[in-house]
Amino acid sequence: MKIKNIEKKILCRIFLNNLERKKTLGNIYKYLDIERVELEKIIDNLISKQLIKKFKKNYILTDKGRKSIRIVFTGGVYDIIHPGHIHTLKNSKQEGDILIVSIARDSRVSKIKGRDPINNEKRRTILVSAIRYVDHTLLGSKGDIFTIVKKIKPDIITIGYDQTHQLSELRKLVRTNNMKIKIKKLGSPIPHVKSSSLRTKYKKRIR
Amino acid sequence: MKIKNIEKKILCRIFLNNLERKKTLGNIYKYLDIERVELEKIIDNLISKQLIKKFKKNYILTDKGRKSIRIVFTGGVYDIIHPGHIHTLKNSKQEGDILIVSIARDSRVSKIKGRDPINNEKRRTILVSAIRYVDHTLLGSKGDIFTIVKKIKPDIITIGYDQTHQLSELRKLVRTNNMKIKIKKLGSPIPHVKSSSLRTKYKKRIR
Repeated sequence: MKIKNIEKKILCRIFLNNLERKKTLGNIYKYLDIERVELEKIIDNLISKQLIKKFKKNYILTDKGRKSIRIVFTGGVYDIIHPGHIHTLKNSKQEGDILIVSIARDSRVSKIKGRDPINNEKRRTILVSAIRYVDHTLLGSKGDIFTIVKKIKPDIITIGYDQTHQLSELRKLVRTNNMKIKIKKLGSPIPHVKSSSLRTKYKKRIR
Repeated sequence: MKIKNIEKKILCRIFLNNLERKKTLGNIYKYLDIERVELEKIIDNLISKQLIKKFKKNYILTDKGRKSIRIVFTGGVYDIIHPGHIHTLKNSKQEGDILIVSIARDSRVSKIKGRDPINNEKRRTILVSAIRYVDHTLLGSKGDIFTIVKKIKPDIITIGYDQTHQLSELRKLVRTNNMKIKIKKLGSPIPHVKSSSLRTKYKKRIR
C-alpha cells in the first residue's frame, strides 16, 4: 500500500502526540502546513486504510499504522554538545521517520563515568531537544537502556561512532527477547571528535 | 492584504534560497508538505499579488514581498552551547518569520575575549545550524557586525540577555544610518546561565 508523504507525517505526529500525552490532532497545524478541511480528509483516509483508529477522544495508530512508520532510537549523555553529536543525530534521523533520544540520568552518568555531568539531566534535555533532527527526548531509566527499548519498541537503534560499550549488550538483549530491532553502528564524522578529547581541550584552553 | 500561512512560508523559503544561492523552488518540497500542483497555484497567486517576481530562472521577493515577512537577526560566539543560548534563539525566532544568526569569526573572538574559542568558527557554525529555531547562519564580518546588518537588512535585531556591549553601538548605527530596525534586548531565562560562568564550572569539574 502506497502512503503519501503527508499521510506519513500525520501518522508520525499522532504517534508523537500520544507519546507526549497530548491531544492527537491539537498541535498538527503547528508542525504541518495543512488546512483543516484537508486534514479531516486525510484523517478519514487513514481510518479507512486501517492505519489509525479512534481511542477515547483521540486517535492511535493501529498495528498496521505503526508498521508503516520507522522509529529510530538512540541515546547518550550529551553533556557538552559537539559536532560529532550533531553528525550522529542527523544520521540517526535519516534511518527512519521519527528520532527518539534517551538522555542518560545524572545518577547513571556518575555511576558509569565516575564523575557528575557538567550539565544536569534537565539542562542536557533542553539542549538535545533543541536539535532539529530530534523528535522526542526522554530521560533514561535509572537502571539500564532496556526498559525504555521495551517501551518504545523502535525499528532501529543507532549507536554513535564513539559509543562501543553498549553494542554487544544491546545485540544480546534483542536476541534473547526475540525483538525485531535492527542495531546499527554509525560511521565517524570527519574530523574525528570525541567528548573525552574535547574535555581535555577545554581543560587546557580555559584560563 | 491577507497572506495565508503557507504563502508566508513559501516567501520565507524563496528568500532563504536566494540568500543561500540555491534554486528558489528546488528544495521547497523538503521543507513544506505541499504537492507540486498546489505549489504552482500558490506561486501564481504570489506573482499576481506582486509579492514575488521572476528573476533569471528563479524567483525573488519584491519590496512588497520582503515587507510582508519579518526577518530577525542575532549574533554571538556560541562557543559552548548552553540552555541560555537555546532560550535566546527560541525567543529571537518568535519575534519574526526567519531567524538569521551571525557567528563571530575566530579572529574576532580572539581579539575581543583575549583567547581563542574552544570550538573554531566552522564547528560553531555546525552547532548553531543544528538548532531548530535557526533558519540561516553566516560567519560574521572580520571587522564588525554592521557590514552584515547592512547586507541582511533585518526588521529586528535581538540581543541576548547576557550581551550588553553591542546594544549602544547598534542603536547608534541604526540611528546614524537612518535604518528602520527594531533592537530588542531579550529577557533572562531561569535559571540564569552565562557562558563565562559555565567556563569556570567546566574548569572546576573537569578532572
